[in-house]
Amino acid sequence: MNLDDLRTEAERRLDPVHRDFFAGGAGDERTLRANETAFDAYRILPRVLRGGGARDLRITLFGDELALPVLASPTAFHRLAHPDGELACARAVAAAGTVMVVSMAATTPIEAVAAATDAERRRARLWFQLYPQPDLGFTESVIRRAEAAGCQALVVTGDSPVFGWRERDLRNGFLDLPSGLWCENMRDPQTGTVRNIVMDDRLDWARIDWLREITRLPVVLKGVLHPADARLAVEHGVDAVLVSNHGGRQLDGVPASIDALPAVVDAVEGRVPVLLDGGVRRGTDILTALAFGAVAVGVGRPVVWGLAARGEAGVRQVFDWLRADLARAMTLAGAVRPADLTPDLILPGAAG
Amino acid sequence: MNLDDLRTEAERRLDPVHRDFFAGGAGDERTLRANETAFDAYRILPRVLRGGGARDLRITLFGDELALPVLASPTAFHRLAHPDGELACARAVAAAGTVMVVSMAATTPIEAVAAATDAERRRARLWFQLYPQPDLGFTESVIRRAEAAGCQALVVTGDSPVFGWRERDLRNGFLDLPSGLWCENMRDPQTGTVRNIVMDDRLDWARIDWLREITRLPVVLKGVLHPADARLAVEHGVDAVLVSNHGGRQLDGVPASIDALPAVVDAVEGRVPVLLDGGVRRGTDILTALAFGAVAVGVGRPVVWGLAARGEAGVRQVFDWLRADLARAMTLAGAVRPADLTPDLILPGAAG
Amino acid sequence: MNLDDLRTEAERRLDPVHRDFFAGGAGDERTLRANETAFDAYRILPRVLRGGGARDLRITLFGDELALPVLASPTAFHRLAHPDGELACARAVAAAGTVMVVSMAATTPIEAVAAATDAERRRARLWFQLYPQPDLGFTESVIRRAEAAGCQALVVTGDSPVFGWRERDLRNGFLDLPSGLWCENMRDPQTGTVRNIVMDDRLDWARIDWLREITRLPVVLKGVLHPADARLAVEHGVDAVLVSNHGGRQLDGVPASIDALPAVVDAVEGRVPVLLDGGVRRGTDILTALAFGAVAVGVGRPVVWGLAARGEAGVRQVFDWLRADLARAMTLAGAVRPADLTPDLILPGAAG
Amino acid sequence: MNLDDLRTEAERRLDPVHRDFFAGGAGDERTLRANETAFDAYRILPRVLRGGGARDLRITLFGDELALPVLASPTAFHRLAHPDGELACARAVAAAGTVMVVSMAATTPIEAVAAATDAERRRARLWFQLYPQPDLGFTESVIRRAEAAGCQALVVTGDSPVFGWRERDLRNGFLDLPSGLWCENMRDPQTGTVRNIVMDDRLDWARIDWLREITRLPVVLKGVLHPADARLAVEHGVDAVLVSNHGGRQLDGVPASIDALPAVVDAVEGRVPVLLDGGVRRGTDILTALAFGAVAVGVGRPVVWGLAARGEAGVRQVFDWLRADLARAMTLAGAVRPADLTPDLILPGAAG
Repeated sequence: MNLDDLRTEAERRLDPVHRDFFAGGAGDERTLRANETAFDAYRILPRVLRGGGARDLRITLFGDELALPVLASPTAFHRLAHPDGELACARAVAAAGTVMVVSMAATTPIEAVAAATDAERRRARLWFQLYPQPDLGFTESVIRRAEAAGCQALVVTGDSPVFGWRERDLRNGFLDLPSGLWCENMRDPQTGTVRNIVMDDRLDWARIDWLREITRLPVVLKGVLHPADARLAVEHGVDAVLVSNHGGRQLDGVPASIDALPAVVDAVEGRVPVLLDGGVRRGTDILTALAFGAVAVGVGRPVVWGLAARGEAGVRQVFDWLRADLARAMTLAGAVRPADLTPDLILPGAAG
Repeated sequence: MNLDDLRTEAERRLDPVHRDFFAGGAGDERTLRANETAFDAYRILPRVLRGGGARDLRITLFGDELALPVLASPTAFHRLAHPDGELACARAVAAAGTVMVVSMAATTPIEAVAAATDAERRRARLWFQLYPQPDLGFTESVIRRAEAAGCQALVVTGDSPVFGWRERDLRNGFLDLPSGLWCENMRDPQTGTVRNIVMDDRLDWARIDWLREITRLPVVLKGVLHPADARLAVEHGVDAVLVSNHGGRQLDGVPASIDALPAVVDAVEGRVPVLLDGGVRRGTDILTALAFGAVAVGVGRPVVWGLAARGEAGVRQVFDWLRADLARAMTLAGAVRPADLTPDLILPGAAG
Repeated sequence: MNLDDLRTEAERRLDPVHRDFFAGGAGDERTLRANETAFDAYRILPRVLRGGGARDLRITLFGDELALPVLASPTAFHRLAHPDGELACARAVAAAGTVMVVSMAATTPIEAVAAATDAERRRARLWFQLYPQPDLGFTESVIRRAEAAGCQALVVTGDSPVFGWRERDLRNGFLDLPSGLWCENMRDPQTGTVRNIVMDDRLDWARIDWLREITRLPVVLKGVLHPADARLAVEHGVDAVLVSNHGGRQLDGVPASIDALPAVVDAVEGRVPVLLDGGVRRGTDILTALAFGAVAVGVGRPVVWGLAARGEAGVRQVFDWLRADLARAMTLAGAVRPADLTPDLILPGAAG
Repeated sequence: MNLDDLRTEAERRLDPVHRDFFAGGAGDERTLRANETAFDAYRILPRVLRGGGARDLRITLFGDELALPVLASPTAFHRLAHPDGELACARAVAAAGTVMVVSMAATTPIEAVAAATDAERRRARLWFQLYPQPDLGFTESVIRRAEAAGCQALVVTGDSPVFGWRERDLRNGFLDLPSGLWCENMRDPQTGTVRNIVMDDRLDWARIDWLREITRLPVVLKGVLHPADARLAVEHGVDAVLVSNHGGRQLDGVPASIDALPAVVDAVEGRVPVLLDGGVRRGTDILTALAFGAVAVGVGRPVVWGLAARGEAGVRQVFDWLRADLARAMTLAGAVRPADLTPDLILPGAAG
C-alpha cells in the first residue's frame, strides 16, 4: 500500500538492537522526525489539463541515464538487515534501472557487489560512498578498488568529522558488528585485516582537491546544508552536491533536508546537479524536491526496510512503488517529465 | 444541531467499506483533513449595527436564481448510501431551490433524476459532471443525454488524469459497485452495456475547446487550484471555475480549497464566477469563501451524510441547516446579501 | 491560588445545565477557547530597575476614578449562579472600587442592585447594559429606570442582531429561566409582565444617534472588532468602545478579543477610551491589553465563578486576586502606573 | 547519556516539596517550558570540511580564562539538594575550570565555599549573586564578604522587585528553609542572626551606580530581556549583561531567554559581553546561544540535578557531558573555537 507497510514488517523482523541502529538518529531525534514531517508542510499546486499520456521518469546524471530520479542512498551494514545484504540491494537497484550508492561500511566487498549485478547481465550502476581516511595511502587504495569494480562516482561524506551522538545505540551498547560481519571495504590490502572507519576531524577542502587529483570519477559531496558550502563545493570542482543531514544521525537540530534544499539550489545556480536525501517516503516528496530544483533524491531507510522485510524482492518493491507513486503524483500535478516540475508548484504552508 | 450529527448517524448506518469509500481520501489524507481544518485558521471580523432585517441569500448563476449560495457538489454512487439514491438527493436539492451537480458516476440515469423533480413540479436545477472520455463519440452521446434531460451546465472534472491513491479502498478491496448497481450514465447507447469510466491522462485544453464547440451549455471547470490554470480557463472560454481538490481524493498534499481560493479569485479578475468545494461544514465556512470572492460553494460529503442517515429528508436537513446557519452568520457579521461579504471581513490567523 | 480554583469550585456547585449556559460559546467554541489561549501567544518584555515602590492601579473613566483597571462585564442571570445574585456581585464590585456593568438580563431589578450598594454606604458605580429594543418607547423606559437608579453609563451591545448558536444550550434544552426568576429589567412598567429581550436584526447606527439624543449618559459601544466600526463609533459620538466578542457566544470564528484590540486602538487614535473583555484570567492578561492601549478590561465568567463558588465573598476574591496579580505583574514588568504600559513591552510569539 | 538521566535520578531522590521548589516556575509556567522548547525552534546550518582537529572551548571573561563557555548560574539552597550543598558544587565547578555564581541564598557561607576550592588547590572562580537590599550598609557588608572571599564579579539580579507567583510552592506551603539550614550570606555581622532577603520594589539604576562606586568588582546585570535595558546597562557602566528570565520563576509570559537574546546582542553592540541562562540542556543549545552572540551560557537546574543525584560527582558529570556535547556539536557544525560560531549558522524554524 505504501512504504509504511514494509517499515512495519521490517521492524518486526529485525533484532531490536539492529532496528534501533537503522531507525535511530542523533540526540533528541528532532532532525530525524523533521525529515519526514517537513515535507507535509509544503503544499503542491497542481496544474490541470496538461495531457501527455504516460509519464517519462528518466533523468541523466553524469551522462548516464537513470530510469527514475531516485537513488539508493548509502546505508551501512546490509547483512544486519538480511543475509543477502548488499548483493540483494544491488540486484534490486539494477533491476530498477537506477544507482546504488554502496557504503564504505558495507558488509560485502565492493567487488562482490559489482559482480552480483554484472553476473545477471543487468547494467550495474554503482557509486561508492567514501569517508576519506587520514591515511591517504589507504584512502587511495579504497578508491582504486571502487574504480576497478566499475563504480561510476565517489560520494564523499562531508558531515561526519566525528560520530553523531546516537543515544539508542549507546543505550543498547551497539558498538561493533556481530561476529562474522566486517566492513569489507575497509580490509587492508597488505594485512588482510579490517580497519575501523576513522571519522576525521581534520578533513577539509584540501582533501577534496586531492581526491579530484587522484581520480577521474565524478565527486559528489554529501552532507551539504549551508549555501556557502554549496558555493565552495562548486568552486572546488565538485561534480554534484547532495543535500543531506545523514538521516538525522549526525548533528541533531539541523534542518530537514527539504527545508535546506531551496537555498542550496539558489547558491549552486545550476552549475552542478543538486541531489537530496532525508525523509523521502512518497511520490509527492520526490515531486517536491524536484520542483525545488533537485535532479534526483536518495532513499536510505526505505531500502533497509525492503531488505529486512523481504530481501531483494523487498527492495524491488520499494523502487517499484516509488516509481508508480511518483508517476501518479506527476500525472496529477500535470508534469510529464521531471523537468516539468517547477518551483511555482510548491507553496509553503502549515503541516496538515 | 450541526452536520456532525448527521455524519455520526450516517457512519453508523453505512456498510464500513462504503463508509470508507465516502469518507476517505488519497495517500495520508492530509488534504482531506486540511479541507476542514483550514477554515478554522481564518478569523471573521464582523461588522456591527448594519441593520437590514431578514437576510437575502439568493444569488444568480448563469442567469438563473438560486435560493442560497450552496450547491450539491457531484458525489458518486448515491444508491450505496440510500436505496432512493440520486432521486432522493435531487428532490431535496430541488426543494432547497438550488443546484444538484449529478455525477457521471451516478447509480441512477440522468433522465430519471431529471424526471424525479419534474414529476413533482419543482423546478429542477441539474448540472452534469463529466469526465471527458477518450472516446469522443461516446463523450458526446453522454452530453446529449444530459442536455436532453434538461441539465443546465457541464461540470468538467480536470483534476483526474488518473485515479487518486485511496488506501482505504485498496485495503478494503473496494473496486466495483455491488451487484445490481451500475454507473447508469455510462450505459452504451448501442450495446446497453455499461462502460467503465476512463481517467484520461491525455486530457488537455484542446478537449475543453472541443466541448465548447459541441454544446451550448455553460462549462464549469472543476479542480482548479493553480492561478495559472484559472487564467487559462478564462482564456479558453470556460464559464466558471470551481476551486476543488476533489475532496482530498486525488493528489494528497495539495492545499485545502479555501487556502487556494484567494489566488484563483485574483487571477480570474471577475471575468467568470468562481465556485469552491471542500470542507464546507458551517455557515461561517460559506461566509469565508464568499468573502474571498466565491459566488457559491458546493457541499459533497454532507449531502451523502444526509442521504445515508435519512434519505431525502436528511439531504433537506443539510440544506435547511446550512441556509439557517449562513443567514445567522451573515446577520452576526453585518451582511444583508452575499454581495456584502468582502475580503476585509477575513483575517488570517492561527487555528483556534 | 488563581482563578481556576474558583472555576473548579463553581463548576462543581452549578447545576450542569446552568454551568453549560455560563461556560459555553457559539458553534464549535473556537472563539471561546481562543479568548483564553490568544493571550499566551504574546510575550511580555519586562523593564528592570525602574523602582517606584507600591503600584498605583487607579484609572479614570468618564471623569470617575476606579481603583483598578478591571470592570465586571455584563453577565446574565446571576441568581442562577447564587441566590444573592446581582446584589452580591454589586456589593463585591463596590468594595473593589470599580464598575459593575449590570446586564439587561439581570435577575434582580436595577433599582435593587443600586440600593444594595447605597445602603452600605459604599459608592456604587453601575453601568447599564442595553440591548436596544425595537419598541423605542419601552427602550426609553428602561433607560430612564437605569438613570434613576444612578447608573453612570449605558453599554450598548452591538454584536447581537440575532442570538448566537449555542449548541450546549440547545442540547440541554435550556431556553427559559426557571420558575421564579425573571429578567427584572424587562418588566413592563404598565402591565407588570416581563417582556422577552428581542435581538433586533434592524439595529443600526441611527439607533445610536437616537440613544445619544435621549440620554446624557455616556454611551459605550460593546462588541466592536472591525476597525472600521471603531471609526464609525467615534464619528457617531460614542464615548467609549468595548472590544468584545461576547465571550465567544455570538459568532464563532471571530478573533480573540486581544487579537482584535491593536487595530481598534489604531483606528480610534485616542479619541475615546478603548476597553476590552474576553479571556482575561491573569494579571499578565490585563497588562497585555493595557500595553496595547486598552484603558481597562472587563471580566465576565470569573465574576460568575466567584459568585457561584462563594457568593459576594467569591466575587471579592476575584477582584482581590486580580488586583494583586496585576500589581505583581506591573512591578515585575517595571510599570508603576497603568499609563507606563506601552506597546514595546509586548512581542508577538508562539504560544508556549 | 544526557542530562535527562540526571534529572530523573534527582527527581527520584528529592523530597517532593523541594523537587517542586527547584523545578517550578511562576504562574502557568509558560516561560519555564518555553525556555527549553524555544531552542528546538531554531535550526543549525552546519558548515562542512573545515578541519581543525580537536576543539578549543576556552573563552576569556573579565581577563580570566574559562575552560568552557558554560557557567553555573546562581541557584538557591544547595543543601536542600545534597548535604554537601554549595561545597560540592564549587569543587565540581573548579574542577571543570569554569565559574560558579554563588547565590546570595546559599546555605553555605561564601567564605566556606571559597575555602573549599582553595584547600584543594584548584583555582576557584567564584562570582557572587546579589539582591541589593534596601539597607545599604548591610548590602555593602555582604559585598565586602564576597570580595574578601575572593569573588571575582558581582551578579546583580534586576528581575526581582517582588517575588514571582510560584504556585507549586504556595500549594506545598514551602515558605521557609527547614530547621538547621540558613541563608548564610544573610547573616548579620553584628547580631549573628540571619536576615530575610528583601525583594526591593524601589531598586533602580541609581543603585547600580552606587554599587559601581563602592566596589571594583565587575558588575554583571542579570535578568535583562528588553533591549532598551541592555542599552541602559551599558550606559550605567555595567560590565556584562546576563539575559535571563530567572528560570521562568519571576514573571510568567516573558520570552524564552534564547528568543530575547538576539535583540539584546544588537542593542549592546559589542560594548560588553552578553551572557544567557535559561533552558540550556544540550551542546546545540550552547552553540545556538553563542552563534547569536552570547559569550557564555549559564546552567542552573542541571547543576541542581547533578548535585541532588550524586553530589560533587554529579555536578562534574553535568560539566563533563556539556563540554563533550558542545565539542561534538561544534565539530559537526564546523567551528573550531567559540568565536567561529556566527549568526548565519542559525535559522528560525518550526519546532520539530
